[in-house]
Amino acid sequence: MIRFLTAGESHGKALTIIVDGFPSNLKIAKDYINSHLKRRQVGYGRGLRMKIETDAVDILSGVRFGKTLGSPLSFIIRNSDWENWTERMDHETKNKNVEKISIPRPGHADLTGISKFNLDDIRNSIERSSARETAARVAAGSVARRFLEEFGIFVGSYVESLGGIYHENDFFVDLLNNNLTKKFNAWSLAQQADKSDVRVLDKTQEAKIINKIKKAKKQGDTLGGTFIAVATGVPVGLGSFTQYDLKLNAEIAHSIMSINAVKGVEIGGGFISSDLFGSENHDEIIIKDNILSRKTNMAGGIEGGISTGLPIIVRGSMKPIATLMNPLISVDLHTMRQVESRRERSDFTAVPACAVIAESMLAWSLAKYFLIKFGGDSLEEIKDNYNSYTKKLQARIKKNFR
Amino acid sequence: MIRFLTAGESHGKALTIIVDGFPSNLKIAKDYINSHLKRRQVGYGRGLRMKIETDAVDILSGVRFGKTLGSPLSFIIRNSDWENWTERMDHETKNKNVEKISIPRPGHADLTGISKFNLDDIRNSIERSSARETAARVAAGSVARRFLEEFGIFVGSYVESLGGIYHENDFFVDLLNNNLTKKFNAWSLAQQADKSDVRVLDKTQEAKIINKIKKAKKQGDTLGGTFIAVATGVPVGLGSFTQYDLKLNAEIAHSIMSINAVKGVEIGGGFISSDLFGSENHDEIIIKDNILSRKTNMAGGIEGGISTGLPIIVRGSMKPIATLMNPLISVDLHTMRQVESRRERSDFTAVPACAVIAESMLAWSLAKYFLIKFGGDSLEEIKDNYNSYTKKLQARIKKNFR
Amino acid sequence: MIRFLTAGESHGKALTIIVDGFPSNLKIAKDYINSHLKRRQVGYGRGLRMKIETDAVDILSGVRFGKTLGSPLSFIIRNSDWENWTERMDHETKNKNVEKISIPRPGHADLTGISKFNLDDIRNSIERSSARETAARVAAGSVARRFLEEFGIFVGSYVESLGGIYHENDFFVDLLNNNLTKKFNAWSLAQQADKSDVRVLDKTQEAKIINKIKKAKKQGDTLGGTFIAVATGVPVGLGSFTQYDLKLNAEIAHSIMSINAVKGVEIGGGFISSDLFGSENHDEIIIKDNILSRKTNMAGGIEGGISTGLPIIVRGSMKPIATLMNPLISVDLHTMRQVESRRERSDFTAVPACAVIAESMLAWSLAKYFLIKFGGDSLEEIKDNYNSYTKKLQARIKKNFR
Amino acid sequence: MIRFLTAGESHGKALTIIVDGFPSNLKIAKDYINSHLKRRQVGYGRGLRMKIETDAVDILSGVRFGKTLGSPLSFIIRNSDWENWTERMDHETKNKNVEKISIPRPGHADLTGISKFNLDDIRNSIERSSARETAARVAAGSVARRFLEEFGIFVGSYVESLGGIYHENDFFVDLLNNNLTKKFNAWSLAQQADKSDVRVLDKTQEAKIINKIKKAKKQGDTLGGTFIAVATGVPVGLGSFTQYDLKLNAEIAHSIMSINAVKGVEIGGGFISSDLFGSENHDEIIIKDNILSRKTNMAGGIEGGISTGLPIIVRGSMKPIATLMNPLISVDLHTMRQVESRRERSDFTAVPACAVIAESMLAWSLAKYFLIKFGGDSLEEIKDNYNSYTKKLQARIKKNFR
Repeated sequence: MIRFLTAGESHGKALTIIVDGFPSNLKIAKDYINSHLKRRQVGYGRGLRMKIETDAVDILSGVRFGKTLGSPLSFIIRNSDWENWTERMDHETKNKNVEKISIPRPGHADLTGISKFNLDDIRNSIERSSARETAARVAAGSVARRFLEEFGIFVGSYVESLGGIYHENDFFVDLLNNNLTKKFNAWSLAQQADKSDVRVLDKTQEAKIINKIKKAKKQGDTLGGTFIAVATGVPVGLGSFTQYDLKLNAEIAHSIMSINAVKGVEIGGGFISSDLFGSENHDEIIIKDNILSRKTNMAGGIEGGISTGLPIIVRGSMKPIATLMNPLISVDLHTMRQVESRRERSDFTAVPACAVIAESMLAWSLAKYFLIKFGGDSLEEIKDNYNSYTKKLQARIKKNFR
Repeated sequence: MIRFLTAGESHGKALTIIVDGFPSNLKIAKDYINSHLKRRQVGYGRGLRMKIETDAVDILSGVRFGKTLGSPLSFIIRNSDWENWTERMDHETKNKNVEKISIPRPGHADLTGISKFNLDDIRNSIERSSARETAARVAAGSVARRFLEEFGIFVGSYVESLGGIYHENDFFVDLLNNNLTKKFNAWSLAQQADKSDVRVLDKTQEAKIINKIKKAKKQGDTLGGTFIAVATGVPVGLGSFTQYDLKLNAEIAHSIMSINAVKGVEIGGGFISSDLFGSENHDEIIIKDNILSRKTNMAGGIEGGISTGLPIIVRGSMKPIATLMNPLISVDLHTMRQVESRRERSDFTAVPACAVIAESMLAWSLAKYFLIKFGGDSLEEIKDNYNSYTKKLQARIKKNFR
Repeated sequence: MIRFLTAGESHGKALTIIVDGFPSNLKIAKDYINSHLKRRQVGYGRGLRMKIETDAVDILSGVRFGKTLGSPLSFIIRNSDWENWTERMDHETKNKNVEKISIPRPGHADLTGISKFNLDDIRNSIERSSARETAARVAAGSVARRFLEEFGIFVGSYVESLGGIYHENDFFVDLLNNNLTKKFNAWSLAQQADKSDVRVLDKTQEAKIINKIKKAKKQGDTLGGTFIAVATGVPVGLGSFTQYDLKLNAEIAHSIMSINAVKGVEIGGGFISSDLFGSENHDEIIIKDNILSRKTNMAGGIEGGISTGLPIIVRGSMKPIATLMNPLISVDLHTMRQVESRRERSDFTAVPACAVIAESMLAWSLAKYFLIKFGGDSLEEIKDNYNSYTKKLQARIKKNFR
Repeated sequence: MIRFLTAGESHGKALTIIVDGFPSNLKIAKDYINSHLKRRQVGYGRGLRMKIETDAVDILSGVRFGKTLGSPLSFIIRNSDWENWTERMDHETKNKNVEKISIPRPGHADLTGISKFNLDDIRNSIERSSARETAARVAAGSVARRFLEEFGIFVGSYVESLGGIYHENDFFVDLLNNNLTKKFNAWSLAQQADKSDVRVLDKTQEAKIINKIKKAKKQGDTLGGTFIAVATGVPVGLGSFTQYDLKLNAEIAHSIMSINAVKGVEIGGGFISSDLFGSENHDEIIIKDNILSRKTNMAGGIEGGISTGLPIIVRGSMKPIATLMNPLISVDLHTMRQVESRRERSDFTAVPACAVIAESMLAWSLAKYFLIKFGGDSLEEIKDNYNSYTKKLQARIKKNFR
């Protein structure tokens, strides 16, 4: 069973990540992880911080001579701005100069955090609730992603809409209709999206979105959006219907909803399916190229909590960034009077980053369920198990029903 | 930590449920649980089975003289049709007459199940993947619900749409706008919905929906829909942003998505929020009746993975029932030829039931996180902890920021 | 990941067991489980209850035509004495006649239970804390045992000592010295022990023990003892040193210590090893029959938290039964005065049963770690994985170090 | 629920530790943690490494101005010898010079590790299986220990025997007989032990032990021993008998057995209890100073899996160190020929350290179960819960049984 823990405050010394349970002999390089960390940092509409910092992991353990040992991997991602924060974030002594934050921002964990943890400074809550933590998740997710690649499983994502600007002929429809070539690979999809400043697949849409972001900036406002995350090459059989907590779709819903600012998640047709007749929705079973296949993929690659072998399709909703330059109304907890919420250096939108984080979490969930199904302690052992299962699958079905 | 396991095949002897981790001295009666089981069975558009069977638990353990003991509760729900299935579902010997099912239905776990588990009869998969299991969840959820009531926490639900028929002025908008009286109680909402044959809040909408279901029946087709589940009285502070797997919204997304046929889940504004400016979306913080409150509840009662004290608002999507009387195309695994998918006694729609199951799962998730926060082994101890926390909360905030 | 929950009060209607996570296509019969339940009930020195009751499971789910479905198994074991307890254990109403128990027994969970759960009747605690629950564990453990048999893994046990009466040339020494034929099978060991009324391996020791039990009976006293549980055929590689909570020895220690009345657990040499020089203790590595082997098995089959391939050797301590006919001193909680502890129908000793329960828990732990390593959803898939790993093991070592 | 993960190879850059789930507002200083790390490093008979290195944590997160934030704590402990190992432990590239280790040591995870993980160099296994990892556990355990102190709960340990040299009138007997003053505090016990070079409580025993270690050194041999870990101030009610995996004794057995080289664990009387009559063993219940108490503490502070309020008494066995200067027989995996096992810089004995690690793990298990019972997110909230429960306990018992 793979698991990870992350630690680290937004303006602390570093993020720490421990990733446990991956097999030995998996090739993984620092550059690989860093390339995905970088993908999380780009995108039009990000704040200053993303421009001045370049996240990079320092590998502390778990890897030797370019391959995993089977022992836990640990990484740290240093906060390059740490030097400016040593006093405000000192582990030991409080300097009198350090001011407390007393005005909670709507949409953030400011008020919930200080209530739950009985804190006397909103900073004590926001340092950890900040989306900075998602860099740690991309690092953890990169290990999962690297692992999945060994089995021809790829994850990718793109921004479907930003600030309400959708594309008329969205690729999402092709996904649901299973209108994809056999060679379709979710990573190519991600690479295509990476070429766009807002990670969309269409130039016209991109232009409109950038204009909308500019407008938001001018107004001191922020934007959200929707994203699509896809995984290809996933074998039949991950997840289970035997208990409620083993369903692959539930696992993925958890992973995606756990990302900061995500408020909705769908698998396949999602809310569209609710409005259809059964005859319009379900993926008819056919024989194609001599093997069992489906006409469509409205199920998004999961039936009965189990992967079908078709692409896993996930759609997510990210709410607008909660820190506004033209601030909302709030209350100063010091005076208990109504005030403007405080301004803080922030992004105007972060949907492109959110999509990359969704890729990472999707990769994590798939690797978790993959390893539950296939077991194994070394990459070689897992490959044996995987190949044996996938090779025998069609023959076993035929034999069982002969 | 509460947990439950369920067991049981759709046409087996009985469903079994073990519910572990609830405190002692909680009053709970069989009738209470059965009343919720009944709520799951009603609704226009259900198949024959719902009419001939009335689910009822037999309590096997965990309760004495009307109160819990702290030990695990166990229930069984007998399948009243069992006598007709003893041969086909025999635990020991196979009678030659028993026919195998070899045609998988699109939209079901038929094909994924036999692939994953290497089964030679589709019945071996569908017996457990059937939504029959959700009766067990309602039983487990009833314990959670009973527990929450002791703290003034109530859950309820209603059907928002069925077959694409929505109501113009849906109550959902009132929920997001926080246009509710202080006395608003999610259970009253559920009771109102229970009066409708399709669990909607509006008579006109009800009539249109029933017509649509009639049409579906006539066509041998099926319908899905959307539902809203709400919890009121939830205190500030359940869930946490400190790790990705502790967020209350992620927990709820998991619970709801784990329900059979659910394909989408939203918290609060969900996908609507993606299209808004930040200034339109976030719930401004105000002082109302001398305590901190919010103008709106677009966050659906959760900020930063932590409950805010406002109603928890969940929206879910249920796809149409997968068994159609006018069947879809499939493949007979015996002949490997294209055939019509098999017909089987089934519902035409089950969205009203799904909403009740969603209530149960929401209650479960809330009770789980409630007990993580408040600890305790007897109801009295938990009440002490709860009262101490909630009474001191406002005073502590004031003191901390004075 | 396999897991089980049990429920049920000692004098309640029934014990309930749900066993989750075993693969499909495993042959399992009610008689098989019942045969192990029976082994738990025998033994000289048991109380009346064991004589009047014969535990037997009723299978409620998870098995069809003699084989598992992959879905959870559930069993109930009815309490044959239930009819005499319906009033005292009524789920709903309390009859005025029912007397409360107010005198806690030393050595039982009487006082801790009512303190923790804030109970007003000691019966509310003892009904669940009773060792009756271990029948449920034997049922769950039987599934694990059945599964392991498919891979040539067998568990067995015997009583090493009872009431302080040990055997001079105990078989335990042979186990540690690895003086066993290749064909040694832990189940034969168990069968040999089963022939004895107190599950020892030697007739003289048996006679002495029975005399001691007779003496204890006469004195109204009770006895404890020690037992050895062994597993043979366990492959190299279960468990891990990579995190503290993955070590196979820690898992086994947990399982064995969780059995009622067990106060100590050792793996291999255990406390003997503490007194030896390193040169006297460690199992030298040799080549035997062309494969890597060991001179001795002081490690008890586990090095660095990982199984070595040699027999797993576990030794456990059971304290004397806590209910004495010649009672200890206690306090009546009603009067808060010193009194004699209450007498209750009970065993005089139960070490033979405890050893059988230890077998069951050992089987459980091994099956759990086996499935973590080998994955798989059907028995066939797991066999493929297992065979591939074990067949390649020696060759891979050679190749890696060539 | 608290949890921790550790990472790090013995000769890697650093150990990494993430500790998750502790409340906010707990005072904790680096010096405090380091003082316990130091206690793990001392003791007569340690190898060179312990002399040249002084372990110290670098706090990376979770603490601000001397207090916890509620967010996860992370620490790194740098390996001061890292500079000499950069080539041999390089994360990326393998230098041709680096030699592989091919001779497994008996008693270590050398052979099991390379088998399980399919490794081609024994170093890849031993780097993580090394007891170096226990430094990380002491760091994690220090947080638990600091937390428990706030509630008057203290843990301590001493070495009972080393190389088979016991003390005639061991303090262990006083513990079991409950011959302790009300003020007895496990931390004072630890401090007393810390004064001895081998952490025993008696000077004569110390002298004999040191002589034995000298003898072992001369022979190139190693020694093990036994230790006692104690916790005082633990309230009634931690752990539960309601499921097998909730028992406090099972949790502790797991924690202690997970420590490198530990082969046995006992609670209270342990294996002594097996040989006694019930009348000799159980802790009679009395009224002392007006509250319920016990004559003895043979149960070691746990009855029915629940803490009784008396000191928790744990006894553990550590086998001799597995690396001998006068080596055992092994096989060179390169040649598959019998050879002498390799020599490696190592300790001659490490029982004093093991006892300190046992303290840490005991503290961890107690904090884990304490937080399950008392819940809470800030230290203040937990204190409220704890005080409410403990203050009402006696009164509630009286009221319940009046």
